[in-house]
Amino acid sequence: MENNKLSELRHSCAHLLAAAVMNIWPHAKRTIGPAIENGFYYDFDFGDVKISDADFPKIEQEMRKLIKTWKSFERSEHTAEEAKKQYPGNEFKHELIEEFTQNGEHKVSFYTSGEFTDLCKGGHCEKPNQEIKHFKLLSVAGAYWRGSEKNKMLTRIYGTCFFTKEELESHLKMLEEAKNRDHRKLGKELELFFIDEMVGKGLVMWLPKGTIVRDLIENLARKMEEEAGYQRIVTPHIAKEDLFLASGHLPYYKDSMYPPMVMDDGTYYLKAMNCPHHHRVFLHGIRSYREMPVRLAEYGTCYRNELSGTLSGLLRVRAMAMNDAHMYCTKDQIKEEFANVLRLTMNYFEIFGLKDYWFRLSKWDPKNKDKYIDEPDNWNFSEQVLREVLQEMKVPFKEADNEAAFYGPKVDVQFKSAIGREETMSTIQLDFAAKKRFNLSYIDETGKPNNEVFVIHRAPLSVHERFLAFLLEHYAGKFPLWLSPVQVELLPVNDSHVEAAQSVVAKLRKVGIRADVNIHAMTLGKKIRAATLKKIPYMGIMGDKETSDEQVHVSVRARDGKDLGSMTIPEFITMIQNDIEKHL
Amino acid sequence: MENNKLSELRHSCAHLLAAAVMNIWPHAKRTIGPAIENGFYYDFDFGDVKISDADFPKIEQEMRKLIKTWKSFERSEHTAEEAKKQYPGNEFKHELIEEFTQNGEHKVSFYTSGEFTDLCKGGHCEKPNQEIKHFKLLSVAGAYWRGSEKNKMLTRIYGTCFFTKEELESHLKMLEEAKNRDHRKLGKELELFFIDEMVGKGLVMWLPKGTIVRDLIENLARKMEEEAGYQRIVTPHIAKEDLFLASGHLPYYKDSMYPPMVMDDGTYYLKAMNCPHHHRVFLHGIRSYREMPVRLAEYGTCYRNELSGTLSGLLRVRAMAMNDAHMYCTKDQIKEEFANVLRLTMNYFEIFGLKDYWFRLSKWDPKNKDKYIDEPDNWNFSEQVLREVLQEMKVPFKEADNEAAFYGPKVDVQFKSAIGREETMSTIQLDFAAKKRFNLSYIDETGKPNNEVFVIHRAPLSVHERFLAFLLEHYAGKFPLWLSPVQVELLPVNDSHVEAAQSVVAKLRKVGIRADVNIHAMTLGKKIRAATLKKIPYMGIMGDKETSDEQVHVSVRARDGKDLGSMTIPEFITMIQNDIEKHL
Repeated sequence: MENNKLSELRHSCAHLLAAAVMNIWPHAKRTIGPAIENGFYYDFDFGDVKISDADFPKIEQEMRKLIKTWKSFERSEHTAEEAKKQYPGNEFKHELIEEFTQNGEHKVSFYTSGEFTDLCKGGHCEKPNQEIKHFKLLSVAGAYWRGSEKNKMLTRIYGTCFFTKEELESHLKMLEEAKNRDHRKLGKELELFFIDEMVGKGLVMWLPKGTIVRDLIENLARKMEEEAGYQRIVTPHIAKEDLFLASGHLPYYKDSMYPPMVMDDGTYYLKAMNCPHHHRVFLHGIRSYREMPVRLAEYGTCYRNELSGTLSGLLRVRAMAMNDAHMYCTKDQIKEEFANVLRLTMNYFEIFGLKDYWFRLSKWDPKNKDKYIDEPDNWNFSEQVLREVLQEMKVPFKEADNEAAFYGPKVDVQFKSAIGREETMSTIQLDFAAKKRFNLSYIDETGKPNNEVFVIHRAPLSVHERFLAFLLEHYAGKFPLWLSPVQVELLPVNDSHVEAAQSVVAKLRKVGIRADVNIHAMTLGKKIRAATLKKIPYMGIMGDKETSDEQVHVSVRARDGKDLGSMTIPEFITMIQNDIEKHL
Repeated sequence: MENNKLSELRHSCAHLLAAAVMNIWPHAKRTIGPAIENGFYYDFDFGDVKISDADFPKIEQEMRKLIKTWKSFERSEHTAEEAKKQYPGNEFKHELIEEFTQNGEHKVSFYTSGEFTDLCKGGHCEKPNQEIKHFKLLSVAGAYWRGSEKNKMLTRIYGTCFFTKEELESHLKMLEEAKNRDHRKLGKELELFFIDEMVGKGLVMWLPKGTIVRDLIENLARKMEEEAGYQRIVTPHIAKEDLFLASGHLPYYKDSMYPPMVMDDGTYYLKAMNCPHHHRVFLHGIRSYREMPVRLAEYGTCYRNELSGTLSGLLRVRAMAMNDAHMYCTKDQIKEEFANVLRLTMNYFEIFGLKDYWFRLSKWDPKNKDKYIDEPDNWNFSEQVLREVLQEMKVPFKEADNEAAFYGPKVDVQFKSAIGREETMSTIQLDFAAKKRFNLSYIDETGKPNNEVFVIHRAPLSVHERFLAFLLEHYAGKFPLWLSPVQVELLPVNDSHVEAAQSVVAKLRKVGIRADVNIHAMTLGKKIRAATLKKIPYMGIMGDKETSDEQVHVSVRARDGKDLGSMTIPEFITMIQNDIEKHL
């Protein structure tokens, strides 16, 4: 109800925007102006006139002038012929009028406020001059008429409007924050990655600093998963058609895969998932019940054929690296194994300082025979097992019907991002279809082959690219010390201190601390600003004072500007190592 | 000359083989029997009779009987008609006779020794009954008539022959050794990898133990190259056609690349080399002379379209991982940079215990204008620089004309393998073509863009797959301790000692030692044999004696059978860690 009122307010504000634009640019053709999530827009054909955000003050001023005269929205009805006369030469409105009147058989409605009248189906606020006060124009973008690239490109003006000043200000602040936390902007400033048109869209090129972060995350996974009894494997990025026919990816998933490559011995595809390869590794050799559960992990890169127009930064890519793993277990082991995965997942989140999440148990719908594998006993058993795990671990969770995968129930981890967006970070899926498709089996206690092999798919850290985008936003680019590509930058006050700084860098590097020195000809102030912009956790300033003493020391400054005072090199190292140890 | 005599001896022995076979299987059709490297063969059509190495004693006995009567090889000439009569119903010999006589226009030669006569162009030893003494039949294989799969499959019998008993025995010993060192056999026994027909030929699936070795080598490279100032990057496995057109891989190298994949935004290829991607990373952002040389390293996987019939184990694969790197340097920096790479390469070899190698400086040929980039000054300058580096480092090297790459001179590292095969392990290549193709440049001391960027390509550890095959052969599967996937196996004498052994394993793992325990129901003797077969460096035996003392200890046995006596756990750990530290 509240949302509906807000939408009406915003749609009304779109009318006001159109009225102001038509007063300023009488030759513009107006089209449509709906409310959307968080605001509204209105699309115009400005002809040869170019509009930018530099025009916003002028438009907003006109809006504020006009709104005083808008006491209400008055409805009137018109025939197609009358309606078209209101928009001489405006082919967009004519098209809408013909559609709405079904080629003249019905009437259309108009709404008038002040001196402005527009074709509209209704849904406005009641007292515009009292209610439309807290608005702001936000951005300009190109948009095809009716969303089709075959049509003319129009100019879309976005804005927003709230009932109170506080709400508007808080929203604008959030938008500002989102801009500062934008992973594309941060990725560039921190020199983590780039997308190269010559290499291709959606294919991330990891620069040295981005590679350091990637390796740190991979090594963390390696270490934690080794302790949890996982075995690492490496499989190729391609495989024969036969493998994907066996897995069922072909033909069902074909559109999401890269096109086939025909070789002298058959047709090959880039893998879109690691599971088929992992199943084949499980099948290599005979498995005894003594080995179960088998846990196979790989930092595997998969390739998916997304439409080029949908690709964006790290959030939507075509090549994705995944700290992937598959567990092969007996029915009796599902519960413990699922609990282990859940615990491991939560341990990861703790290390990354992620706290704002909850779980969703996605279940099948017994009536939906096409969507789910037909094994009611396994569904009922495993959904109950997963529910028990979540209950016993006392974690917050909701249940969702008809949201499972084809092959079994799953637990999604839902996150609220730093700027309030909800998203699914990782999923843990149970799979009881793979055992038949791949004829998975093990030799059980009776010495006979047993086909009841259950598979758990899991990638707690999501796709690496997406996880990094999330982390960049979460930390606003300020990686914790242990994850920072550069942990310390030494800042010599002038050229005479460069050598001393370099020798400190060597000492730090020797104990595994990632340290650099700023050797450029800049003032200390500029060096501090540069290191702050690069969000380097610690700066070590070295001038006459620090280098003249018998024992060299550094003046340490944190990236938040805090002065941590003077330290000897061993003291500095101890402080840094302690923090790294604690994943700070 | 000597080799020629040996070939004549071996070809003569092929006659003897044919004579013996024809005596035993008179209905067999004989075809041809040349000397080859290390021996000879003879191809027969045995009809429905199946021949195996179980028949060798019988054939060899007949050969020994016949040779007594072979005093010489006597030549005679015959018309086509006469010749064919010697081989009733033998279409293979008839085909040869027609060919050799040019359809009857010339005569053909026959050679007779004892009672055996065969169509032959000549080249025999002089006194067969005195010279053909030290021979051995080796194997049976299928072979198409004249090497074409359109023709009939024949039976090929391989053998060898030497002038002295000692030479024969030493050769047979070498063959036995080669069999034991075969990387396919060892890879299976040590559970390192497998090739899966469903995934595809030439695509290695690395099992957990193979992945450990792969990671250890990668980590070694990471560490050593970080110390040498390399920066790690990660680039996609595919790229747009445009990139490979710029690099020149398309169209010249197209046949060796995987087929194109046409997407909605252009045509993509799997990368066959990492360099084009690396050049693009170098080009990202502006490079200052202060950054040069820039060293970009990646453990990149490349894909090459080899014919499926040529693929074999790890030696010829389609997917290859490479510890690759490219240096971007100024002309002045070539010498030092090249020397650095050479030193690093030699350091690698020292760590792996590889000593039997020398260098080859591969140069251009100024007359061969098509084969080489036309920059005579750069050729002369850089060949001299490389020569100086090799001379100053006092390493053994030879120079080879007309063996350079298109884009610059290179230094190859030549190895003599454990079974005497010579092969090129790694190459260090200088490249002065890339700068123009990719418009590589940096801002020099004058503040202006400078295009004189020289590239060094290097992969000291070759392609990982090939390097591992080499190492398996070199070590005969006995990886040094630091590189062993399992470093210690605990062997409980019986079930009552399993728990104690598991607690020792936990202690070893905690300090990073890769330890397992054999929990199977076997006698101690069998456990020792199993661990020996898996070539595990240390076995730790635990029985009543070892577990009953106040301080638990283990009886340590090395894989060569040496008894290292009783040790406490801390003593055992110290010994292992010391050896690992020293890359033993």
